Amino acid sequence: MKTHSYTRILQWGECDPAGIIFFPNYLRWMADGVDQMFLAEGIDPNAAVAPGTRSGIPIVQLSMRFLGAPRLHETVIHQISVERLGGKSLTLHHRFLCGENLLAEADETRVWATFKSPENSGLNPARIPDRIRAMLAPETGNPPDTTGDKEEE
Amino acid sequence: MKTHSYTRILQWGECDPAGIIFFPNYLRWMADGVDQMFLAEGIDPNAAVAPGTRSGIPIVQLSMRFLGAPRLHETVIHQISVERLGGKSLTLHHRFLCGENLLAEADETRVWATFKSPENSGLNPARIPDRIRAMLAPETGNPPDTTGDKEEE
Amino acid sequence: MKTHSYTRILQWGECDPAGIIFFPNYLRWMADGVDQMFLAEGIDPNAAVAPGTRSGIPIVQLSMRFLGAPRLHETVIHQISVERLGGKSLTLHHRFLCGENLLAEADETRVWATFKSPENSGLNPARIPDRIRAMLAPETGNPPDTTGDKEEE
Amino acid sequence: MKTHSYTRILQWGECDPAGIIFFPNYLRWMADGVDQMFLAEGIDPNAAVAPGTRSGIPIVQLSMRFLGAPRLHETVIHQISVERLGGKSLTLHHRFLCGENLLAEADETRVWATFKSPENSGLNPARIPDRIRAMLAPETGNPPDTTGDKEEE
Repeated sequence: MKTHSYTRILQWGECDPAGIIFFPNYLRWMADGVDQMFLAEGIDPNAAVAPGTRSGIPIVQLSMRFLGAPRLHETVIHQISVERLGGKSLTLHHRFLCGENLLAEADETRVWATFKSPENSGLNPARIPDRIRAMLAPETGNPPDTTGDKEEE
Repeated sequence: MKTHSYTRILQWGECDPAGIIFFPNYLRWMADGVDQMFLAEGIDPNAAVAPGTRSGIPIVQLSMRFLGAPRLHETVIHQISVERLGGKSLTLHHRFLCGENLLAEADETRVWATFKSPENSGLNPARIPDRIRAMLAPETGNPPDTTGDKEEE
Repeated sequence: MKTHSYTRILQWGECDPAGIIFFPNYLRWMADGVDQMFLAEGIDPNAAVAPGTRSGIPIVQLSMRFLGAPRLHETVIHQISVERLGGKSLTLHHRFLCGENLLAEADETRVWATFKSPENSGLNPARIPDRIRAMLAPETGNPPDTTGDKEEE
Repeated sequence: MKTHSYTRILQWGECDPAGIIFFPNYLRWMADGVDQMFLAEGIDPNAAVAPGTRSGIPIVQLSMRFLGAPRLHETVIHQISVERLGGKSLTLHHRFLCGENLLAEADETRVWATFKSPENSGLNPARIPDRIRAMLAPETGNPPDTTGDKEEE
C-alpha cells in the first residue's frame, strides 16, 4: 500500500503557551499531508469535477494517541500509510516522530465523495476511481477490501 | 456610521509560547467581527447570489498598530466602526481593548464583490446595495463618499 | 458528573473551500470549550502554579466520529460531559449538534499535569486536586474511578 | 540587507469558502517566514535566554496591500527583505507572488525584546545584538539607522 513521508518544523504560531504543539494542528497536518500525498501523484482530491460540483475526501472517523509533543522549532517527521482501501472509503495511518521518538499516531477513515458547490447540500459518496486505486495499492491485484463501507453503500 | 462591539476571551489555542495572542488571530477576529456585524442586521455578506456565484467582501488594504497584547484568558473588547462608505468599497476601523487599555487598532478597506464558485476566476466589484448602505450609514442623507474607489471603477 | 454546553456560529475562517467546517477546528473548539467549562467555575486549568511552573491538561487519547458538518454561519451546540474522573486523568465526551442533528461526537482523555516553562522539559502528571474533583463530580461521594490511570501512576 | 525567499503550496485548510487564501494566513506565513530566515542562519529569535526569560520579536506596526489571492493548491513565492535596521527594531518587507503575479505585499516593524515567561509581565526592548546585526546587514559598515526607534528608547 502507498506510503508518504515528509518533514516539517514546528512553527511559533503552531505552539501553545506551553511551548509545544497546539494539538489541533496535528489534524491540520494530517489534512495537508494527505492532500500532498495525492498531489505528488498528480491527483487533486479536491478538484472541481463539473460546473458547480467538487470532489472531496471528508473524514468520517478518527482515533488518535498522544505520547509526546514536539517543542518550538523541532523537526517532525510525518509518515502516512494507506491501511485499508475500500470501495468508497479508505483508512490512513499517521505517525508523527521526532527522530526515533513517536509523538503521536492516528487512524482516520476518509470517504471518496462529490458535493455541490457553493450550496453544499450534502455529500455523494462515490466509488474510488481505478486510477486512484492503482496509485494507492499499486502492488496488489487483489479485489478491494470493502470492509467498513457498509454505512456508505 | 454603523458601529459594532462585542467581547471575547483569549483562548489557549490563540496564544503563542509567549502566553499572549498570536497576532494573526487579530485578523481572524476582524474577519469574524465584520461578518457578525452584518449578520446581526440579517445580512449575509458571503451569501450565494445565483447558482455558481457568491458574494463577498475581500480585503484590499490594511494598516495596523500593536500597542499591547492580551494574555491567556483575558477579556478583549473588539470595537468596529464604519469609517468610510464608498461606491464599491468601505473602510472599517477596529479597536481591541483590555478594559481601558488599547491593545491594537486597525483600518481595513473591503470591496463589495461577487465571484464565481468554486472556480473563483476573479472578483467582480459591485456597487454596495442600497439596503446595505442604509444599514451602514443610517443617519445621513448624504451621497456616498466615493473617495478611494478610483481603482475599482 | 459535570456538563457544560454553549452555542457558537461557524465563521468564514473556520470553513474550507467546501463551505463546511475545516474539521481540525472541532478540536480547537474542544480545547476552548473545556477551558471555558473550568473557567466558568473560577478554575484556570492552565494557571502558573509557581515561578517557572505551569499547570495544564494535555490530551493523551482521542476518538471521534463525523456524521455531518456545519455550513457557513450555522449555529452549533457544543455539549461537554465528564464521562470518567480518574486519579490523574479524566475522560470528556463532546457532542456537536445543529438543532437536533448530531454532527460529530468525540471522547478525549486528558491528564492533570504540571510542566516547566518555557523550557518544557516534560509533563509531571499529578493527582486531580479535591476542589477540581468536587467541581467535576459534585453529586457523588464515591471514591474516584482510577480505571485508565495505570499508565500514569 | 538580508533577503530570504521560499515557496509554499496553498493548503485546503488555509482557504476560505471562496477557494482562495483566508487572508489572516498571510500573517501566519509572515511570522513563520521571518523565524525561518533567522533559523536558517542558526539564530533562534524566540530562544530562552535565562531561566524564566525568553527573547522575541513582536510586531508593532503593519501595513499591507492585497492585489490578488492564491487559489487552492497554487504555489506561492514568499520574499522577505530587511528594509530598515534600527537600534532596537527592524522593518521587513514581504512580497507574495504566484509566478510573476504580485498577490500581496506588506511592511512590518518588529522590536527586539525579551519577556518573562510564563507570566509575561511585559516586553523589554533591547538593542539588536551585533551578531544579529551582522547577519541582517552584512554588506555595510554603516552605523545602524535609528529612525523609528524613538518610541522604544
